Amino acid sequence: MKSDKISEAVVRRLPVYLRFLNDLQKREISTVSSQELGQKLDLNPAQIRKDLAYFGDFGRKGIGYDVSYLIEKIRHILKLDQQINVALVGAGNLGHALSNYNAYLKDTMKITAIFDAYEPKVGQQINSLTVQPMSELGDTIRAQGIRIGIITVPDSEAQNVADILVDSGIEAILNFAPVILKTPANIRIHAADFTTDLQSLAYYLHDGKDEAEDEQQ
Amino acid sequence: MKSDKISEAVVRRLPVYLRFLNDLQKREISTVSSQELGQKLDLNPAQIRKDLAYFGDFGRKGIGYDVSYLIEKIRHILKLDQQINVALVGAGNLGHALSNYNAYLKDTMKITAIFDAYEPKVGQQINSLTVQPMSELGDTIRAQGIRIGIITVPDSEAQNVADILVDSGIEAILNFAPVILKTPANIRIHAADFTTDLQSLAYYLHDGKDEAEDEQQ
Repeated sequence: MKSDKISEAVVRRLPVYLRFLNDLQKREISTVSSQELGQKLDLNPAQIRKDLAYFGDFGRKGIGYDVSYLIEKIRHILKLDQQINVALVGAGNLGHALSNYNAYLKDTMKITAIFDAYEPKVGQQINSLTVQPMSELGDTIRAQGIRIGIITVPDSEAQNVADILVDSGIEAILNFAPVILKTPANIRIHAADFTTDLQSLAYYLHDGKDEAEDEQQ
Repeated sequence: MKSDKISEAVVRRLPVYLRFLNDLQKREISTVSSQELGQKLDLNPAQIRKDLAYFGDFGRKGIGYDVSYLIEKIRHILKLDQQINVALVGAGNLGHALSNYNAYLKDTMKITAIFDAYEPKVGQQINSLTVQPMSELGDTIRAQGIRIGIITVPDSEAQNVADILVDSGIEAILNFAPVILKTPANIRIHAADFTTDLQSLAYYLHDGKDEAEDEQQ
């Protein structure tokens, strides 16, 4: 079912579809058209049909997509039908905030361990987890079969943490430190630096509000 | 110079180029090839040349791109050569964490005001800002000419906050609440929900680690 040709842009849209579909299911809506999806998600319906067609023939002409079937398929494609344990490194404000998201991650994906290098933080309770020292990182990753690491440490420490995560067998990293990490090619890195989000958002600010160009808009 | 046809995917890559280019400039490297950019950023060099060609003819064959010229151009395209003020609504752990990023946002884009609905938070100092009550949101946005809002409130409050931001004249929103916001079409919304980042990352986990499929990898 899975082709290696699926672009990152498509993969990144799937969780967005999933979130909206889950919302429909909660409201007991059982079918949805690509038009409705498109309108809600600000995407071209043809783009949505193309995205979903990568993974098989889900839609039925004139009826649309079966919501619960599509949820199941996307969950499978994204491997969200497996238990995936996640380690969070860096128990600062951001680490605290992210650990609160456990509730949204549903039962199959969970932050199961939190680490910090700063001694006074070790032993603190964050939600139901106890902050562990960095010295326990490798053993805990192996013992819990943790596959994804989240880095929320200061940028000067991020590469060092990434190295330890990779050495401990992690397969993917979500990096919140505003630095570009060097890792082996088989490790997937997503940069979650919010400054790039903000900067790309600035592109869409309205041009020349008080200027003559206004009329070109 | 700006075409309305530039896709969001391209716009989202520009800050990533910018970050790498700033890093090169710090190291006093004055030219860079699309090959080097591609290797560093895990992108096809042809893709990078195509991305940058949208905005004009920057590169010189056999020499590459002039780093400081390219930085200047991307900053202009992203409107980072203008002062852009940002309001942050929600002074919880995530709000605290994000306000720390002001240092990375450089001088032209800045979080200049923080708001919270929870009375005991009002008046608190976060870095150099004082948390303001929600009742001051509209006036402050207008007084400071704030153009971008960041939402870090609980999901049940996110739509209400978005409505107030829009009514106060904000043009773009970075939304960290895991809900889909309804706003007028001329308001740009980026969802920064990290659960979608994590979920798309799961797609790249290695298949069938302990299974027969292993050999297909």
